[in-house]
Amino acid sequence: MELGMIGLGRMGANMAERLVRGGHVAVGFDPTPAARELAASKGILPVSSLAELVDQLPAPRVLWLMVPAGQIVEDTLAQLVPLLSRDDVVIDGGNSFYKDSMRRADMMSLHGIHYIDSGTSGGVWGLAEGYSLMLGGDAGAVERLRPILSTLAPASDRGWGRVGPSGSGHFTKMVHNGIEYGMMQAYAEGFAIMQGKQDFALDLHQVAEIWREGSVVRSWLLDLTSNALGGNPSLAGIAPYVDDSGEGRWTVAEAIDLNVSAPVITLSLLERLRSREDDSFADKLLAAMRNEFGGHRTKQQP
Amino acid sequence: MELGMIGLGRMGANMAERLVRGGHVAVGFDPTPAARELAASKGILPVSSLAELVDQLPAPRVLWLMVPAGQIVEDTLAQLVPLLSRDDVVIDGGNSFYKDSMRRADMMSLHGIHYIDSGTSGGVWGLAEGYSLMLGGDAGAVERLRPILSTLAPASDRGWGRVGPSGSGHFTKMVHNGIEYGMMQAYAEGFAIMQGKQDFALDLHQVAEIWREGSVVRSWLLDLTSNALGGNPSLAGIAPYVDDSGEGRWTVAEAIDLNVSAPVITLSLLERLRSREDDSFADKLLAAMRNEFGGHRTKQQP
Amino acid sequence: MELGMIGLGRMGANMAERLVRGGHVAVGFDPTPAARELAASKGILPVSSLAELVDQLPAPRVLWLMVPAGQIVEDTLAQLVPLLSRDDVVIDGGNSFYKDSMRRADMMSLHGIHYIDSGTSGGVWGLAEGYSLMLGGDAGAVERLRPILSTLAPASDRGWGRVGPSGSGHFTKMVHNGIEYGMMQAYAEGFAIMQGKQDFALDLHQVAEIWREGSVVRSWLLDLTSNALGGNPSLAGIAPYVDDSGEGRWTVAEAIDLNVSAPVITLSLLERLRSREDDSFADKLLAAMRNEFGGHRTKQQP
Amino acid sequence: MELGMIGLGRMGANMAERLVRGGHVAVGFDPTPAARELAASKGILPVSSLAELVDQLPAPRVLWLMVPAGQIVEDTLAQLVPLLSRDDVVIDGGNSFYKDSMRRADMMSLHGIHYIDSGTSGGVWGLAEGYSLMLGGDAGAVERLRPILSTLAPASDRGWGRVGPSGSGHFTKMVHNGIEYGMMQAYAEGFAIMQGKQDFALDLHQVAEIWREGSVVRSWLLDLTSNALGGNPSLAGIAPYVDDSGEGRWTVAEAIDLNVSAPVITLSLLERLRSREDDSFADKLLAAMRNEFGGHRTKQQP
Repeated sequence: MELGMIGLGRMGANMAERLVRGGHVAVGFDPTPAARELAASKGILPVSSLAELVDQLPAPRVLWLMVPAGQIVEDTLAQLVPLLSRDDVVIDGGNSFYKDSMRRADMMSLHGIHYIDSGTSGGVWGLAEGYSLMLGGDAGAVERLRPILSTLAPASDRGWGRVGPSGSGHFTKMVHNGIEYGMMQAYAEGFAIMQGKQDFALDLHQVAEIWREGSVVRSWLLDLTSNALGGNPSLAGIAPYVDDSGEGRWTVAEAIDLNVSAPVITLSLLERLRSREDDSFADKLLAAMRNEFGGHRTKQQP
Repeated sequence: MELGMIGLGRMGANMAERLVRGGHVAVGFDPTPAARELAASKGILPVSSLAELVDQLPAPRVLWLMVPAGQIVEDTLAQLVPLLSRDDVVIDGGNSFYKDSMRRADMMSLHGIHYIDSGTSGGVWGLAEGYSLMLGGDAGAVERLRPILSTLAPASDRGWGRVGPSGSGHFTKMVHNGIEYGMMQAYAEGFAIMQGKQDFALDLHQVAEIWREGSVVRSWLLDLTSNALGGNPSLAGIAPYVDDSGEGRWTVAEAIDLNVSAPVITLSLLERLRSREDDSFADKLLAAMRNEFGGHRTKQQP
Repeated sequence: MELGMIGLGRMGANMAERLVRGGHVAVGFDPTPAARELAASKGILPVSSLAELVDQLPAPRVLWLMVPAGQIVEDTLAQLVPLLSRDDVVIDGGNSFYKDSMRRADMMSLHGIHYIDSGTSGGVWGLAEGYSLMLGGDAGAVERLRPILSTLAPASDRGWGRVGPSGSGHFTKMVHNGIEYGMMQAYAEGFAIMQGKQDFALDLHQVAEIWREGSVVRSWLLDLTSNALGGNPSLAGIAPYVDDSGEGRWTVAEAIDLNVSAPVITLSLLERLRSREDDSFADKLLAAMRNEFGGHRTKQQP
Repeated sequence: MELGMIGLGRMGANMAERLVRGGHVAVGFDPTPAARELAASKGILPVSSLAELVDQLPAPRVLWLMVPAGQIVEDTLAQLVPLLSRDDVVIDGGNSFYKDSMRRADMMSLHGIHYIDSGTSGGVWGLAEGYSLMLGGDAGAVERLRPILSTLAPASDRGWGRVGPSGSGHFTKMVHNGIEYGMMQAYAEGFAIMQGKQDFALDLHQVAEIWREGSVVRSWLLDLTSNALGGNPSLAGIAPYVDDSGEGRWTVAEAIDLNVSAPVITLSLLERLRSREDDSFADKLLAAMRNEFGGHRTKQQP
């Protein structure tokens, strides 16, 4: 099957490469020449404009967006609409906010274009192991994508599926990432407790390795944790600074909006914010209050 | 190798059966005749007293305790001590509190007996898939157990290991269970958010199945979640009542004792307590306070 | 000073009454005849339309909105704009979202009208004790309001102030309510712990009374808590169902947006959501998972 | 009335001084000569041994312990027992763990001595404003203390009371401190959110002052917060390092033991632990995991 990949960053290039390896034809657009060159070396046919991309593909076309969420998606769609024809399919495989995807699908449908939102999980390991794909949108359009979805996924009939109407793919992926935050935090806390029990001098990499086989907490995230600890058991040189890329915030906001109490996912996000507060005003005020009522001396800093 | 299993409940019987399947000789004691009969049908040699168990085993003996944590362990050891000889090895494979195991190891060593604490994970699936084993205690004694550990574990050289001195095996397992609480809660919240998004009418079993392949949140707990949702997608008939068996409480207490902040593991425990409060006094008082200051009417109940 | 009060619900009527008692002239509008009649009995001059209200007041006018946040504020302003003159002052004393207030202030300034956002705290006790007022907007306009602010507040020179530009009054009130959630939850949990310690059979009303004098936790919320417990020590008949009116949600969202970790305020909101989940899907799934891996029986329900 | 005060630190000396001001006779013991001298200057009669203290008081004696919780209480009681007579009353006014107080009361009763546990709140302000006193133990013994309790408390008939049997006074005070943690954290978070909203440039001391009058969140802790912010609005020089003195830990442990979910009190404790983790292993591991699965670069540190 032929497909146009828009965005040849790490994720887009890997997905296109997996498709090429699976016997598909992938035409790829990226504004960066270096990205196009790298893609070409993987068998992807590089083009330097969206117009060219559209020209190279037989109608009805299949276009996969793998660009950062937000304004870039918006701008790309604005440029694409006049180039496309009725019945073309555009898939947004990035981490867009699901309500944006719903709005975009409505807008595209006015032009007769099918817009599919695909929650895509797998990270840098997806090239080798396949991607988990949660799709939202028109069932017929998703069915047309079956050949490429079967290739992108870990197995032709598993690891992917249409989960519902427009937006439901990105909604599901958003929740997936919320769960991921919670799981990561659970592991992080557990290993921190073991690290804190210094009289046992536990080898945390060994513990992770034991748990990978047969334990209730075995998981792919544990495999990664073990990798990280194996190369650098004390995590030397790594700052205790944890970024977040948005889906966690959305999950927290949506849960509250739906009146669903999700304390662990929420706290996992807050802990990331906390990791980036290097001079917490709240903690300074707590210390100052203790001094006021109990005469407890505050610790000084310059 | 020959081993005596004390306690032929589900866990003990399964472990003894796995050993028998692996070519070892397992003598098993349980006070319940039915448990002994069932064990006999699996090739375990049943005995009806601890004295008999000790008699049947060649010195130096290997005895594995698989009984509920607490007083039963205490009583069993009290009965065993006069029956055992120097250099025998006793393993506590249950979920004992690690400080109890440290105390018991000290006590047993006064009699020349090696006492090993083994954190054992795997649940009802361990019989088929093998157990994850975290061992604490004398390195030489653990080494003597290698043949049976290699059989109990998922692979002869993986999924088990001596992690440190006495107590460290049960400590590690305790933290394992704390992480398990956090992971379970993260999944539970995520699925609850999806269930709450009723306009997407998501098929939660389908989502779990998609995630099992290739996603970042894939894990054995997710496999189980999918099983549970597959058989009963709406979880009909299941009360929202979540028990806990102690290790979570210990993990929370230990983390605080070690001055390690573990909010997600802690909240996971509290959520279980909350699930069992069917008429929360705190919430009644909150409603009453809102009425006092803002005149907000409280909801009435009989 | 003369002032027009728009909205004669409990808060609006009480505030107008306090102004009348303080020697001001309050003209009051409310669409409900009963509200107007009640207001008239307190010395407020009732009018039955916004046009009449505007007519009755000398220019430059002072109008105070005390209506539910949201569409009603929006609609009222749309009706007012054509009736008002340059230099009139409109105060929104309700719990509007501060960004709405910023937008409205911009819109009103196009017509030469000063728009002031006033965070107003005090609840049903404000009539007798005075209101705490946090004002945002033009400093000159706030200064013109001094006579009425001095009367509304607990003291002429205390309990009120302009805290910053447009929106800052409602922002400050929003955070105030977030803190209120946290304090209420802290008391509620503490009293619940004491209620749970049944062998001490503590008289919770007595404890609250003791704490009201001299203790570190004395506060007005504690006074109210004591009132509530005094009248109904076991809180009989009150459902454990806690509503929320929006400011808590905004506080949580704003904190996250500002990258400030506020776990206690956040959890206080989530606990209110939790109080309203009578058949938690998350808890059902946790019970189901425990059954899957450990064979722990779930509690059944019809 | 005559009373012996054991421990003339800040709290003990202040309480003895308040009693002297109220017309009572206070004999005071402290091992430190400087403490005795200072006490003497306040009208307290200093003695340099427990034996002397006991000698100076008419039987049946009243002795008030105001020493740090733990071993010092234990040792002091061991020394006192042989010196005392039947029907003497010993009050522990410190922050002892309530189960220790129950055990001590049992032990003292074997010698015919009444042992009363008094939760004492008020901090450094108690001298001027009076102490909030929650008493546990024999009702008749408490009644005998009425003259001194009436003087110590903010008012003769308010701010103190016998709340139940032995241990209940310290239990109640423990919960009081748990609530205090939650309230402090709520304020701290709220002020941190306002501090984070930099475009409003809020004067946090002004906001605290406004709230002190008429608002729902007015409290003594807010008065103190305002003091702290008044003297040092940016909290310059104060490290974000928050100590804890034990009662919060006990409250958390007791709540879990009683199966009462107390998330806000619990999180308030954890936040204090977190304030003291300057190189969080959990956060380092989270950063490392993100790098493993998504290729997200970690922030480096030396």
